Amino acid sequence: MRILGIDPGSRITGYGVIATCGHEIGFVTCGTIRTAGETDFSRRLLIIFQDLCEVISVHTPEVAAVEDIFINRNPRSALKLGHARGAAVVAALHNNLAVYDYTARKVKQSVAGYGQAEKGQVQHMVRSLLGLDSIPSEDAADALAVAICHAHHAAFHSELATRI
Amino acid sequence: MRILGIDPGSRITGYGVIATCGHEIGFVTCGTIRTAGETDFSRRLLIIFQDLCEVISVHTPEVAAVEDIFINRNPRSALKLGHARGAAVVAALHNNLAVYDYTARKVKQSVAGYGQAEKGQVQHMVRSLLGLDSIPSEDAADALAVAICHAHHAAFHSELATRI
Repeated sequence: MRILGIDPGSRITGYGVIATCGHEIGFVTCGTIRTAGETDFSRRLLIIFQDLCEVISVHTPEVAAVEDIFINRNPRSALKLGHARGAAVVAALHNNLAVYDYTARKVKQSVAGYGQAEKGQVQHMVRSLLGLDSIPSEDAADALAVAICHAHHAAFHSELATRI
Repeated sequence: MRILGIDPGSRITGYGVIATCGHEIGFVTCGTIRTAGETDFSRRLLIIFQDLCEVISVHTPEVAAVEDIFINRNPRSALKLGHARGAAVVAALHNNLAVYDYTARKVKQSVAGYGQAEKGQVQHMVRSLLGLDSIPSEDAADALAVAICHAHHAAFHSELATRI
């Protein structure tokens, strides 16, 4: 199974694709979609949508795991992030991917064993778990981490189903 | 020119299409996309995206006018509304429509002459301006109102350009 992880943001959206086979996981690709240079906010959403459609078309994941947005106190930021996350989720569903949501806490717990793990720890663990030569950028690492989190959940549930 | 007006919401999204020729405006279609019955929030976004793509394909508007979301004090609501509005904006841009944003205040000013107009007044004025037999639903009327607002702006700016 190929899993697309997405860490949505209105300025930078991280993405990462991993392949799983049982408990094995392998790296496929990762990167960032940078939209901060686009002054028209609506067009940022189109870039997120189109670039993710391109990633899906090239790397053919079957499911998407999207990081839930931390709800801060600022409704204006929440609104902007909501737009970006909406564009990302629609890109996945429009291409017939099943979409799963994970909180940042659950993602960190899954890759670093600790829900409050620092960004650097997540980057380090993602590199280690996927056997990468170099450390991915923060946003790409977060996206790979949410994909790994889904892989762990999927493996756990399928094992549970086999036992029953 | 055909204008698609959109009043996005995570439970109900209103849409309306009008046709303009100089200062004349005519009704084409209007309706609502109801997603409240769908418990999976991500799928609500897909329904908004797909239904708007369908409206665009059938009624061929060239531009979209989308109501800006009033930022209330609740970041959770803002986040949800952001998702819905993001899905709507992406549907328009994905189909090569230019997208314009208008605040609710500007829309009400444009159709009812008063930025604080009540919902009922907007419905009444939309019916009157478009010569409809019956009063459209609140959400459809809001969507038609934002389309009318764009038509007024476009006519004003083109007149200005002609004078200069």
